[in-house]
Amino acid sequence: MTPVDPVALTAALVRCDSVTPREGGALVLLQGVLEEAGFACTRVDRNGIANLFARWGAQAHPRSFGFNGHTDVVPVGDAAAWTAEPFGAEIRDGVMYGRGTTDMKSGVAAFVAAAVDFVRSTPPEGAVILTLTGDEEGDASDGTVALLDWMAGAGERMEVCLVGEPTCPEEMGDMMKIGRRGSMNAWITVTGRQGHSAYPHRALNPLPALARLVDRLSSHVLDEGTAHFDPSTLAVVTLDTGNPATNVIPAQGRATLNIRFNDRHSGAALCDWLRAEAAALDAEFGTVTELRFRISGEAFLTPPGALSDLVAAAVLAETGRQPELSTTGGTSDARFVRHHCPVVEFGLVGKTLHQVDEHVEVAQIGQLKAIYGRILRDYFA
Amino acid sequence: MTPVDPVALTAALVRCDSVTPREGGALVLLQGVLEEAGFACTRVDRNGIANLFARWGAQAHPRSFGFNGHTDVVPVGDAAAWTAEPFGAEIRDGVMYGRGTTDMKSGVAAFVAAAVDFVRSTPPEGAVILTLTGDEEGDASDGTVALLDWMAGAGERMEVCLVGEPTCPEEMGDMMKIGRRGSMNAWITVTGRQGHSAYPHRALNPLPALARLVDRLSSHVLDEGTAHFDPSTLAVVTLDTGNPATNVIPAQGRATLNIRFNDRHSGAALCDWLRAEAAALDAEFGTVTELRFRISGEAFLTPPGALSDLVAAAVLAETGRQPELSTTGGTSDARFVRHHCPVVEFGLVGKTLHQVDEHVEVAQIGQLKAIYGRILRDYFA
Repeated sequence: MTPVDPVALTAALVRCDSVTPREGGALVLLQGVLEEAGFACTRVDRNGIANLFARWGAQAHPRSFGFNGHTDVVPVGDAAAWTAEPFGAEIRDGVMYGRGTTDMKSGVAAFVAAAVDFVRSTPPEGAVILTLTGDEEGDASDGTVALLDWMAGAGERMEVCLVGEPTCPEEMGDMMKIGRRGSMNAWITVTGRQGHSAYPHRALNPLPALARLVDRLSSHVLDEGTAHFDPSTLAVVTLDTGNPATNVIPAQGRATLNIRFNDRHSGAALCDWLRAEAAALDAEFGTVTELRFRISGEAFLTPPGALSDLVAAAVLAETGRQPELSTTGGTSDARFVRHHCPVVEFGLVGKTLHQVDEHVEVAQIGQLKAIYGRILRDYFA
Repeated sequence: MTPVDPVALTAALVRCDSVTPREGGALVLLQGVLEEAGFACTRVDRNGIANLFARWGAQAHPRSFGFNGHTDVVPVGDAAAWTAEPFGAEIRDGVMYGRGTTDMKSGVAAFVAAAVDFVRSTPPEGAVILTLTGDEEGDASDGTVALLDWMAGAGERMEVCLVGEPTCPEEMGDMMKIGRRGSMNAWITVTGRQGHSAYPHRALNPLPALARLVDRLSSHVLDEGTAHFDPSTLAVVTLDTGNPATNVIPAQGRATLNIRFNDRHSGAALCDWLRAEAAALDAEFGTVTELRFRISGEAFLTPPGALSDLVAAAVLAETGRQPELSTTGGTSDARFVRHHCPVVEFGLVGKTLHQVDEHVEVAQIGQLKAIYGRILRDYFA
């Protein structure tokens, strides 16, 4: 049987307008390809989000290799600034342009193509499982989480999982991810008492208190990094009051923080720390500080071992590069999968993800399929 | 001749809708009253703002007592919240309601009534000069300033001047003003370099720098007060970024300050101080801080002496209260008049100025006329 062409499959996926939360035909397309190759497919839709579970081989087999990826993409952004049609998959000089070409329709196409070719050419003793979601870029509350919830109820299980997100910063094969920092946001509102700026002693200005809190939090060294993680970071992303009158002391000031934290911290402990800092501030200034939190993901690590060795060896064999085992970057659905089984991430170079004129080197798509195919062969060998 | 009724005159003025910059008939009304009493009147309009200069007696006489006031008022604000018609001058239980009843149509009516009665009953050896403006509440750039500019060109001169703004915080006669603090605004923009909040080391977040600057400026003690002035104050009135994305470090943050300063400072010296603080901050953080300033008025003082004694004695005689000689509060047109001649301020209780249901005790209007009349008699005695 002819091998599946991952470049053509990427192009077909890019032509599906699957901006979150739209399915856009992408999962339907993949379901057709997979069912033809003998995968048992189940749509696991939840709250308007389309998801696809696909398994080749026996259910709950102890040797079951999983892939995870998403077919949804972020919006086009400034359409006028694109030099190519965002959903056109145009190829110029060995480069394919379009939204999702790197993040991550090429990754999905590569592991679908690798999995189909593998089960057709050398049917393994075990199972190959694909979990494909239509919401990784949005809230992600009904995407991979819905798939994992459904799998738990249906008795489906992966022994290990590889997320196909782009992971290489510069060259194909230079990095894989073995964990991710946690991420959380905090919304801070400091309330004082409004008044006239000519009589500040009759008011209670929340802004000096807010400024001191922000200075303290920004100056605080969360840690110096750990064995596999960079130092945790705290970024103040906005400070807002919205007071147009220069003769009025405002009643409230607001700040928003984004914290990326390593395995030295938990979201809950960071919330406690912020609450204690706010309480100290209120005691100092007489203000009332309210905090609201959202923990997007805890830090996690799949310690270097069998799974990372398997992936790194395949990358080295196909690219000549020993991938760095990294935990940098934002969040991905690996933060959900890690509750299910050991998970690592490897994909191609992601320089232009989310940007105007997002594009991928066509040659990398074939390389990625080759790497994924080698991983499957080695895993089941 | 019948004395001028200052209550009826206040009511007539309140019924003129003279929200800045509208003349609303207020100055026309006063011109009629004054011309009938023998005042030489000149409209000194500039850039759409109406102003009225009125003199009884000889031009440039060495004994010339001046009054200054404004007939414009601030907007009604939340009209639905008023319990009286804002331009109705309704009297209930000895209280007159309406925009401008305290700030400062009652003051204008009181000194016009006092001046008219005085020149009619005991024509003085000297001049009585009234400078009335239609823009004190707005930019004030074509109000009293225009009158003083015109007077300089026309050879008109006041020896001393009394501004009739409300000055009493609690009881009629409890305070007069012998100066005012200066006031200035500073607009601060700190610029860094935008980036992703997951990679703060690749960005240069301006917000921690802004927070530290604001903390330093807010914590700085400008002074402990001087002989006639309260301590200078610095109020941060707004902090703004306007960044809706929690995963983006913004390029800029902004703050606005309002500084009320006493005679230990000048606007220029405060600008220099802010520039130095900003430069220190930029050296520390690598940011670029831009500053924009607006000095609304310098601090000034008419040292206690003949003029304040004259006014205080009249207040004591009419109210039984020795007025405190104060320099508190916001700015007034005295900041312009003080370049022309010694100036003090005295008027009635101003508790509700600029508020909904602004009102004045009717009895205070008569008392105020009596005080102004006594000042005129004593001055020319």
